[in-house]
Amino acid sequence: MKITVLRLGHRVSRDKRITTHCALVARAFGADDIILCGEEDPKVLESVEKVAENWGGKFKIRYEKNYRKPIKSFKGKKIHLTFYGLPLHQKVEEIRKDLKKSNLMIIIGAEKVPRDVYQAADYNISISNQPHSEVAALAITLHEIMEGKELKEEFQNKRFAKAKRKIIPCERGKKFA
Amino acid sequence: MKITVLRLGHRVSRDKRITTHCALVARAFGADDIILCGEEDPKVLESVEKVAENWGGKFKIRYEKNYRKPIKSFKGKKIHLTFYGLPLHQKVEEIRKDLKKSNLMIIIGAEKVPRDVYQAADYNISISNQPHSEVAALAITLHEIMEGKELKEEFQNKRFAKAKRKIIPCERGKKFA
Repeated sequence: MKITVLRLGHRVSRDKRITTHCALVARAFGADDIILCGEEDPKVLESVEKVAENWGGKFKIRYEKNYRKPIKSFKGKKIHLTFYGLPLHQKVEEIRKDLKKSNLMIIIGAEKVPRDVYQAADYNISISNQPHSEVAALAITLHEIMEGKELKEEFQNKRFAKAKRKIIPCERGKKFA
Repeated sequence: MKITVLRLGHRVSRDKRITTHCALVARAFGADDIILCGEEDPKVLESVEKVAENWGGKFKIRYEKNYRKPIKSFKGKKIHLTFYGLPLHQKVEEIRKDLKKSNLMIIIGAEKVPRDVYQAADYNISISNQPHSEVAALAITLHEIMEGKELKEEFQNKRFAKAKRKIIPCERGKKFA
């Protein structure tokens, strides 16, 4: 089934690079698309689309002004990442089972997440209860849901087939296909 | 043994938040300190020090103008994270063994990493060969080296003991100790 990431509360001046990193992590770690909410920011969309075009795969990015709409219309389980939530390892097995029968939405916030997001989520999940980064929280969550498969060459070759740019892993230096 | 993170090529105007996220990820996922290279940026140091003061533990951050100095003087194994490198899962066992007998330095770059870093590193390691984020690469690397222990409550309670602020994980909403 599909994994959608929902990025809340984007602010053009402050979050441009963090939101771009979130989108690239979503793509690289096995999500299918990302929806950006908050301030409209065509530059972030463009730069992520350019990566997707050059590096292969079918990853999609789009903007949605009101975060409530995609949450409400989403059919599947919703996981909100927050450092107030229950530890990922307590719930990850359950979430993996969910993914076998339904789509998943992973919701990541900016500074302040509205109360109704905690209520709308099927899971409020923490990736440690220490302050760090939504980029890291998203990466670890996808990595754990995917059981590390997303980092294997077989997965990447299949998912990002027919790419204009492709790297050959090597011990030192840089090597392109 | 200790884990040090080395962040290369910081640019004040562009990297302020990404570098802060790298430092907070280093702290939350089990590293002992981070060294920032590139442009001097007292604000990043201050904000990370403030988190460390409020949330407990002994994490340290410092600035070093020339990246060659800390690399050269470091005693232990050096792991450079780059999407050109060998997949983490091929080397992580070896790195875990290294950590039992020596310190580790994890080197993360900004846009362009100088050639001599590839040469100085004991390992050039990729966290997927797709473009994404140094924040995510650092988080996944530490998570894999620590085998997920860093997300367990026992680890966090011990490492971040006597904190001014502490969260009690809960299913919905926010709960402080």
